[in-house]
Amino acid sequence: MDDLRGAPLTLSEVARRVGGRLEGPGERTVEGIAPVDEAAPTQMAFLASKRYARYADGSRAGAFLVTPELRRYVPDGVPAVVVRDAYPALRTLLEHFHPPEALEVRVHPTAVLGRDVRLGEGVSVGPYAVLEDGVEVGAHTRIGAHCVLGRRVCVGNACLLHPQVVVYPDSVLGDRVVVHAGARIGSDGFGFTFVDGRHLKMPQVGRAVIEDDVEIGANSTIDRGSLGDTVLGRGSKLDNLVHLAHNVKVGALSLFAALVGVAGSTRVGERVWMGGQVGVSNHLHVGDGARLAIACKVMRDVRPGETVSGHPARPHREQLRNQARLNRLEKLVARVRALEERVRALEAGHGGGERHHGAGDGGNG
Amino acid sequence: MDDLRGAPLTLSEVARRVGGRLEGPGERTVEGIAPVDEAAPTQMAFLASKRYARYADGSRAGAFLVTPELRRYVPDGVPAVVVRDAYPALRTLLEHFHPPEALEVRVHPTAVLGRDVRLGEGVSVGPYAVLEDGVEVGAHTRIGAHCVLGRRVCVGNACLLHPQVVVYPDSVLGDRVVVHAGARIGSDGFGFTFVDGRHLKMPQVGRAVIEDDVEIGANSTIDRGSLGDTVLGRGSKLDNLVHLAHNVKVGALSLFAALVGVAGSTRVGERVWMGGQVGVSNHLHVGDGARLAIACKVMRDVRPGETVSGHPARPHREQLRNQARLNRLEKLVARVRALEERVRALEAGHGGGERHHGAGDGGNG
Amino acid sequence: MDDLRGAPLTLSEVARRVGGRLEGPGERTVEGIAPVDEAAPTQMAFLASKRYARYADGSRAGAFLVTPELRRYVPDGVPAVVVRDAYPALRTLLEHFHPPEALEVRVHPTAVLGRDVRLGEGVSVGPYAVLEDGVEVGAHTRIGAHCVLGRRVCVGNACLLHPQVVVYPDSVLGDRVVVHAGARIGSDGFGFTFVDGRHLKMPQVGRAVIEDDVEIGANSTIDRGSLGDTVLGRGSKLDNLVHLAHNVKVGALSLFAALVGVAGSTRVGERVWMGGQVGVSNHLHVGDGARLAIACKVMRDVRPGETVSGHPARPHREQLRNQARLNRLEKLVARVRALEERVRALEAGHGGGERHHGAGDGGNG
Repeated sequence: MDDLRGAPLTLSEVARRVGGRLEGPGERTVEGIAPVDEAAPTQMAFLASKRYARYADGSRAGAFLVTPELRRYVPDGVPAVVVRDAYPALRTLLEHFHPPEALEVRVHPTAVLGRDVRLGEGVSVGPYAVLEDGVEVGAHTRIGAHCVLGRRVCVGNACLLHPQVVVYPDSVLGDRVVVHAGARIGSDGFGFTFVDGRHLKMPQVGRAVIEDDVEIGANSTIDRGSLGDTVLGRGSKLDNLVHLAHNVKVGALSLFAALVGVAGSTRVGERVWMGGQVGVSNHLHVGDGARLAIACKVMRDVRPGETVSGHPARPHREQLRNQARLNRLEKLVARVRALEERVRALEAGHGGGERHHGAGDGGNG
Repeated sequence: MDDLRGAPLTLSEVARRVGGRLEGPGERTVEGIAPVDEAAPTQMAFLASKRYARYADGSRAGAFLVTPELRRYVPDGVPAVVVRDAYPALRTLLEHFHPPEALEVRVHPTAVLGRDVRLGEGVSVGPYAVLEDGVEVGAHTRIGAHCVLGRRVCVGNACLLHPQVVVYPDSVLGDRVVVHAGARIGSDGFGFTFVDGRHLKMPQVGRAVIEDDVEIGANSTIDRGSLGDTVLGRGSKLDNLVHLAHNVKVGALSLFAALVGVAGSTRVGERVWMGGQVGVSNHLHVGDGARLAIACKVMRDVRPGETVSGHPARPHREQLRNQARLNRLEKLVARVRALEERVRALEAGHGGGERHHGAGDGGNG
Repeated sequence: MDDLRGAPLTLSEVARRVGGRLEGPGERTVEGIAPVDEAAPTQMAFLASKRYARYADGSRAGAFLVTPELRRYVPDGVPAVVVRDAYPALRTLLEHFHPPEALEVRVHPTAVLGRDVRLGEGVSVGPYAVLEDGVEVGAHTRIGAHCVLGRRVCVGNACLLHPQVVVYPDSVLGDRVVVHAGARIGSDGFGFTFVDGRHLKMPQVGRAVIEDDVEIGANSTIDRGSLGDTVLGRGSKLDNLVHLAHNVKVGALSLFAALVGVAGSTRVGERVWMGGQVGVSNHLHVGDGARLAIACKVMRDVRPGETVSGHPARPHREQLRNQARLNRLEKLVARVRALEERVRALEAGHGGGERHHGAGDGGNG
């Protein structure tokens, strides 16, 4: 597809690849792409947010990749490729300029493989990785250094496990799953029952099931199910330090930012977005397409498509209204105080109105 | 005790083991237990929450384990074992149907053992584990792959350390302690003193002491004490990604859900429950039996038995009252506006009362 | 400098080393320093907070290290060293009484070193560590067991990496950097672009750059930049389980407590303090010297020197005022209710004032 990977590109070629409009000399070449305030003269600057427009004037970039709205910030005389969808275009160029390194395919001699381990074609296993009895790994999957795959773990094709991932026994990963360093998949759920003055552990006998095209961030933890499975749906992505408790089910294409915690048995729909540090209580439903604003704390079901925020989370508009009311409380207190004075005056037999108007009021005495 | 572990059970036998009442044919057998919406015809369904009652009608389960209150949801003709305490009963059956795997007892040849390491009878050490000088491990403890026990660490009997646990030097673990993958015990507390324009590190010379029957979740971190020790009390349980800072003391039988953080020197009593993402500030006391609702942020001492919630945390009833007030603010504003109009009318010399009553009022003019 | 490290000290010598005033017999010796409620007769008690003054009377300590304000709590007859800056003094004594262990300098034979790895003088590499191709490590740096340094990672002089740290390819660490167990440096940022019904991964091609004298807590995660670098500034310190997203820039000497999350591209100034569980949204500026109170959730820029708190975070004084108002809402509601009654009375033609004053009012009837 791209047999020139990593090589400089002419601006004509850039425009062709990203489906953009070229403004300037098409034969000029660029060697890479960088933030507008960091780009060198041999690079393109990427400008897709008004926030960074103020850096455009001082940019040393040799060319710009820019959206139509921000076109006017490109300094005079600097060529530009103008493109409506900036991020897919950026992605295309990054994939060209930063091709993945060609890494050796081999099972490192220090890897410990148990009985009945089955490895597909082209599988790599890093130094000191441990694959316990009955593990199965699909074709072209890379298992990083120090990974531990427990008994009977099943990993699909073309996955990438960074170093020091631990997958507990019986967990299942689909195809093209990416797992970052230190993630734990299939750890025991937090389940105890109090008997005779002790917390007795409930056996956690379900599995953790990670569907195709999922990405899991560094040091995230996904518990196995207690009864039944924990499921992370196709194409969903977790950032770092995310916690999914036992029996959580997440639908397809959802995105959870860092430090999110979802408590036991909660069901999250498809295409749900959760900001960083969001917390969701147990046994709830979060509907398809819901948006949970950064750090909100969800104690009730969220309807499909709903945007919630705050602590406790509520519909975002309601939250804003409450905030505004709280901010106006000061004024409300002042209004009540004023009313009290006016009523006192009325009760004393001289209405505040008369004071304002300077009118005599003997008749009310 | 249970020489048939893993084998199918007759319903009579189920009823006998869980101390339940059998309703239906005692000779029918079941091979396992599963959630009501997932159970196969050869399995029992577990039904202990009204939330899942709606799945009962469509369940394919061959029998139900159910509480008296939910008995009526069991479909006609399906046998049931009725039991008051559902979770201990479930635990009994899970322990029967899912006996622990018989694992080999051995010190893996790749484990690195320092000088003066003492291992009790029946200790297992996984591949690539590192036990530094002076480590002591009690009988029948299992140390997972890649664990690192620092110098002079002392681990009791019958503990289970999952893979990639790091225990810093001089830490102490009691008996029957379970530690999940990636937990860090005895890391340095966050202590610095600002001198001459630099944050100088305070030596952290206390220990982390984990008492008997504690369980620690995946990727949780427990700092050592700075002066004096950090202590996690007997039978307490931590979920994943929990942080205990230096010199925190936690009493017996407390439960902390995922992503909880407790700041330095705070003392937490016995049987305290903290929901997910709870934060507790430093140098506080949380009394015995307190309940800290999900994600609440505790800035003041919590009294024994008290339930707190919110940000900042306050007594839960007060929190609810404040929320309700905030929600009613809209109405309060409307009432004040109405009062202002009525007072204006009174001041102008014609009371609103007359308007309402339609009474003549020449005398007030 | 201190050729008696670890040995007992006379109180005269203690006073000399910490620049304090001796009160009592200078020739008495102490063997260590401990919390006031834990110190043995051979140790000094450390008393620098009023919170712990109540333990002074029952203390078994042989002497006190104490601030002038708390001098009066030292029991009669117990010698004391009085010092204004207690924490630097404590640090001096801890460094004396707890000298670092002399550890062997060697590259463990099980360490896996790739091609073109360059190690400075006196570098230690622990068991099973993996240093990939092109890694460079400065003089006297210690790399713990199971650490993984990705391709071309560059680590400075005199660093300390505890066990199981993973540093992704191309990351850079300065001199004297301390990294605790399980920290992940340079993991991919959370960047996807939605094309044709899928979240496509944005290549993350920037670096993670950790400057001199930084300390990073256990299981913290610092993502590499997407375009451009993520930078953690000179002398800054992170506690455990902290998350810095891609392209975050943190200035010098900032302190972040545990479970803090900073979202993508946010710029944090110098000497900023963040309490535990603080969250900062993306693309924000947090000015130099700002203080972000425990668990506050920052959705807007924070000015230099500003203190913010709450959810959403706002200036702390404003937050307190809002809290106070909310608490007084009950009273405000009562005042409005009273006003309504009084206005009703006025409207009905008999002012409440007369009722209070007991005055006749026939004229208004």
